[in-house]
Amino acid sequence: MDASKQTEFTGIKNITISDSFWGTFMERIRTNVIPYQWEALNDRVPDAEPSYCMRNFKLAAELTHPELDYGVPRDIGFGGMVFQDSDFAKWIEAAAYSLVWHPDAALEKTLDEAIDIICNAQQADGYLDTYYIINGLDKCFSNLKDNHELYCFGHFLEAAVAYYEATGKRKLLDALILYADCIDKHIGPEPGKLRGYPGHEIAEMALMRLHAITKDEKHLKLAKYFVDERGQKPLYFDEENKKNNNMFYWKDSHFQFQYYQAGKPVREQHIAEGHAVRAVYLYSGMADIARLTGDEALGKACNDLWNNIVNRQMYITGAIGQSAYGESFSYDYDLPNDTVYAETCASIGLVFFARRMAAIAPKGTYGDVMEKALFNGIISGMALDGKSFFYVNPLEVNPKASQMDRRMKHVKIPRQKWFACACCPPNLSRLLSSLGAYVHSVGEGALYTHLYVGSEAKLKLGGTDAKVNIETKYPWEEQIDISFALSGKAKFKYGFRIPIWCKKYSVSLNGAETGFKLEDGFAVIDREWSSGDKITLVLDMPVSFVKTNPKVRDNTGKTAVMRGPVVYCAEEEDNGPELFKLRIGNPRNIEVKYEKNLLEGVTTISLIGSKEKDWTEDTLYGTADAAFEDKKIVLVPYYSWANRKVGEMSVWLNK
Amino acid sequence: MDASKQTEFTGIKNITISDSFWGTFMERIRTNVIPYQWEALNDRVPDAEPSYCMRNFKLAAELTHPELDYGVPRDIGFGGMVFQDSDFAKWIEAAAYSLVWHPDAALEKTLDEAIDIICNAQQADGYLDTYYIINGLDKCFSNLKDNHELYCFGHFLEAAVAYYEATGKRKLLDALILYADCIDKHIGPEPGKLRGYPGHEIAEMALMRLHAITKDEKHLKLAKYFVDERGQKPLYFDEENKKNNNMFYWKDSHFQFQYYQAGKPVREQHIAEGHAVRAVYLYSGMADIARLTGDEALGKACNDLWNNIVNRQMYITGAIGQSAYGESFSYDYDLPNDTVYAETCASIGLVFFARRMAAIAPKGTYGDVMEKALFNGIISGMALDGKSFFYVNPLEVNPKASQMDRRMKHVKIPRQKWFACACCPPNLSRLLSSLGAYVHSVGEGALYTHLYVGSEAKLKLGGTDAKVNIETKYPWEEQIDISFALSGKAKFKYGFRIPIWCKKYSVSLNGAETGFKLEDGFAVIDREWSSGDKITLVLDMPVSFVKTNPKVRDNTGKTAVMRGPVVYCAEEEDNGPELFKLRIGNPRNIEVKYEKNLLEGVTTISLIGSKEKDWTEDTLYGTADAAFEDKKIVLVPYYSWANRKVGEMSVWLNK
Repeated sequence: MDASKQTEFTGIKNITISDSFWGTFMERIRTNVIPYQWEALNDRVPDAEPSYCMRNFKLAAELTHPELDYGVPRDIGFGGMVFQDSDFAKWIEAAAYSLVWHPDAALEKTLDEAIDIICNAQQADGYLDTYYIINGLDKCFSNLKDNHELYCFGHFLEAAVAYYEATGKRKLLDALILYADCIDKHIGPEPGKLRGYPGHEIAEMALMRLHAITKDEKHLKLAKYFVDERGQKPLYFDEENKKNNNMFYWKDSHFQFQYYQAGKPVREQHIAEGHAVRAVYLYSGMADIARLTGDEALGKACNDLWNNIVNRQMYITGAIGQSAYGESFSYDYDLPNDTVYAETCASIGLVFFARRMAAIAPKGTYGDVMEKALFNGIISGMALDGKSFFYVNPLEVNPKASQMDRRMKHVKIPRQKWFACACCPPNLSRLLSSLGAYVHSVGEGALYTHLYVGSEAKLKLGGTDAKVNIETKYPWEEQIDISFALSGKAKFKYGFRIPIWCKKYSVSLNGAETGFKLEDGFAVIDREWSSGDKITLVLDMPVSFVKTNPKVRDNTGKTAVMRGPVVYCAEEEDNGPELFKLRIGNPRNIEVKYEKNLLEGVTTISLIGSKEKDWTEDTLYGTADAAFEDKKIVLVPYYSWANRKVGEMSVWLNK
Repeated sequence: MDASKQTEFTGIKNITISDSFWGTFMERIRTNVIPYQWEALNDRVPDAEPSYCMRNFKLAAELTHPELDYGVPRDIGFGGMVFQDSDFAKWIEAAAYSLVWHPDAALEKTLDEAIDIICNAQQADGYLDTYYIINGLDKCFSNLKDNHELYCFGHFLEAAVAYYEATGKRKLLDALILYADCIDKHIGPEPGKLRGYPGHEIAEMALMRLHAITKDEKHLKLAKYFVDERGQKPLYFDEENKKNNNMFYWKDSHFQFQYYQAGKPVREQHIAEGHAVRAVYLYSGMADIARLTGDEALGKACNDLWNNIVNRQMYITGAIGQSAYGESFSYDYDLPNDTVYAETCASIGLVFFARRMAAIAPKGTYGDVMEKALFNGIISGMALDGKSFFYVNPLEVNPKASQMDRRMKHVKIPRQKWFACACCPPNLSRLLSSLGAYVHSVGEGALYTHLYVGSEAKLKLGGTDAKVNIETKYPWEEQIDISFALSGKAKFKYGFRIPIWCKKYSVSLNGAETGFKLEDGFAVIDREWSSGDKITLVLDMPVSFVKTNPKVRDNTGKTAVMRGPVVYCAEEEDNGPELFKLRIGNPRNIEVKYEKNLLEGVTTISLIGSKEKDWTEDTLYGTADAAFEDKKIVLVPYYSWANRKVGEMSVWLNK
């Protein structure tokens, strides 16, 4: 690994988003999702299953400090999932970013009060997990494999860092540093400690974020220990099962401990396996550590895992996790469209991983994948009104099958208001609210733009204060204007990503054509820049017809339609039922139209293809050739599907 | 219903099979399956799960007659499934037919001794179910829905009838008549009786077979009661659940009581739903009753259910039951090839139903479906050595998916030696051993041939004794010779089925072209016949490329290859892996070849199609057009698949 290639992404405080596309989503999160989730966490949403989350914290606080009374009966017990705490943490994190995007004193007050409750629940030694505080601390750390203590810790740590970054307030951060010390005391390689690690990863990358603030070696050391120890023999989870009589849910599956990415040491893992969200969270932490420590073997594993996902196991929408069984990766080139799991959180985790890989060394692929996931498989997880959500993001839906075919039982249409396991909505919130942190990264004498998001970033480029301004109507329009406001002349290399989907583009500097080099997916201009310099990038966005690698069984003979980074789909609403009868063929009359009043404003694509004619006879088998008739096919962006009537949807259409 | 159209199939004692194709299968059953199963029933097969079946009967006999000692410890308890008895019954039935096909004194002695044990287990009041005899008779008839008492009764009744028909011995038949009386005493519409019916149907058709022998009204009455009461409100199974605290496994499913075909009265059922084997067993009983009683509404339901299955829910192999969940029918035009359940027993049940529909009024469709199921989806259930079996008969297999994709977990490849729930192997035995009973049926002044099986049948045609001889090398060769030996001249209508797959054929009588009428799928010659008259039917068997109704989502753009009644498939062994890359296109060099030494002798088909070329780049998505290269594609009969190396298989190939 070449340390000189490392880059650092802009902190969220240093970038202001003004993007028309993403701004709408961020406002939707701010005005709908965050307030709604707060109500949900407090069990105040009628017709929704209670979360119990705040109740658990209040009860834990009352048990810890008998003088406190939040009005929660002390004999009521823990409610919700064993990892219920994490929903609260994700909400804090999202709300923290939202404060940056849109300061809100009332929300900040709510946060401060909520943080007080958390801190009141914390034990003197730093321990902080309401499941065990309520159910009995004697059992804590007895099931690292499945009981999600270290997962909740990781999420709270992310929240604490985010709140500190957003507000400068340290209360939650200090509480989490104390909790980290508590974990360090009980878990680690030293004699007498439990030689364990998280069953559901996230603490690894959270500790690395903490370390970036504290620069305290012990935080790096704990993160590195979690990564290094994972999958070492004797296997901790196996020993823990025996010692504590824990159930091993996956003992008859092909996963075994690879469900947890713990079947072998991480440096020996080169194929993405097991639970998809856990996997990409782990890989994110691995990438952070590889970057900071220059660990070649770890870096190689990250690279291999990245390539395996992106080149063998990723849907065209940036969705990952093909299998509902274990919410997991399956195997190379297995990409079923209808039975897919494709959890929103998994694509979000893929973006985390991408950002960290780009920090090791910028390459276009990372921005390509972030963009793919963001414009497609991630925001598909939320209804356009911000009020309902997908956990599962299928690429093909037949409502009848969802009702009557158990293979599609997990494919819930329409979107659901909330989930008992409500991981996806708050994960969406925290990613989209912090989108600014994914746009630019700065390296040694170099600036890279990974995502084209209308924004103004404040950066240091060499010794110079710089503002980088992006103006664009991306993804609907082709032009992106990037201008610099500099405190003086500055020499640096500027790389801006040429998206993988883009076959033709033009670059001009201050209105005139300019030379550039192509390096790892970036157009790079290395010069002395002056304030006011402006790059205009025009990315041609013809309608493109995409094929999958022929090794993908499920997409044989099929095509997907894209324009720019946006994947399109056919919905029953526009095309009638039985979408599998449609043929794209050699399409005629291709029209691209921005429709302001449709689906909150989308660019639609229409074309003349054909549709297979029905038979006149009511039989199943025959020898007549298939007959077709012309058919106008109307496509809408995939992310906007399922916002009208419930009906069929398909991304892949017959060629 | 027109009673004058009714026909009666030849009894098994009146037909001798000499068919080279079927004879091989019948010998395989006789020499492998029947002896093997006897060992299995007696827990003498090493490496197989014990059946416990004979042990249960011996224990029940010891408990019933304390003076008996079969060497089974009396405190050992019941073993196996609640319906374990039925395996024994199916074995008796198959063995009985086998005695007709090939007399065997040793086997008959074994049967007689086994029947003695059964009769010793029977209670004084006729009750005969070892699960309750061993576990406590106080609970008998307390869970008709799930505990399979009436199912085991039905199977024993079938066995008793078969053994009586084969040997004339009444011991088992009388025992079952007594058991029927016992059931009649406890179950029925009269006050004080349980108003129940079978959870797993078969007793209906078994009672109708008994009635055909006894002509006793009470047997018809009981069968008719089972059919009439089914699904009536208040629903017995619902009441029984409440009364006896029985579990209702399907309460959260879309089936509800239709899993048992008990969600509504049978005359209101027009779409095949629920557990497929139960369904076709019920429909078989319904057809028997409709025929005998002239019940129009019942006949209409049978017709509708037949049409629904055959025109909307049946695989090209004659397989039925699309869904592993509940081993059930799913919905119209839903025919997934890889996740299919397609239980061997369900296709066997479909043949039972077809035969009974043909007895109401002969139509070509019944023989067409029997033939389709027999040559394809039924015998695929058994390895060519008769030593291993499929429960599930997929039309597309990817071994990797079977290991790693839970949707395909039920698709076990290769075939298994035996099953804990060993319904399919003995069901295969009893069907194939009694194949003679499916060939001809005789109506008022009419003879119909439904299946072309080399055989000699002894019939009464009007007042004339007739022998009908079929000689053929079907399904490999096109010619079928049918000749009559008559005790005198006889005027009758002779209808022989023109298979639905056959587009071109010739009929000659005594070597000269002859006229005939086409009636409901039969070529009909109505004349005065003389002894020695011989019909020669030549059914052209070109290789045909079959398409599915365009409404079938899973077969869009695909074709299946057939020749005559035989469905072909591509195996990895002949074509390499990734069969989905193959294209039939406009095939060249089509060759048909009988290969004596391949797969116990099969006709193979080969042709030049093409195969999609791999990409040189390791990426998932691109915009290049698909590229193809010529590829010789070799196809073998579907029934013979999975008799070589484990590998991919596909019936439907890309066009």
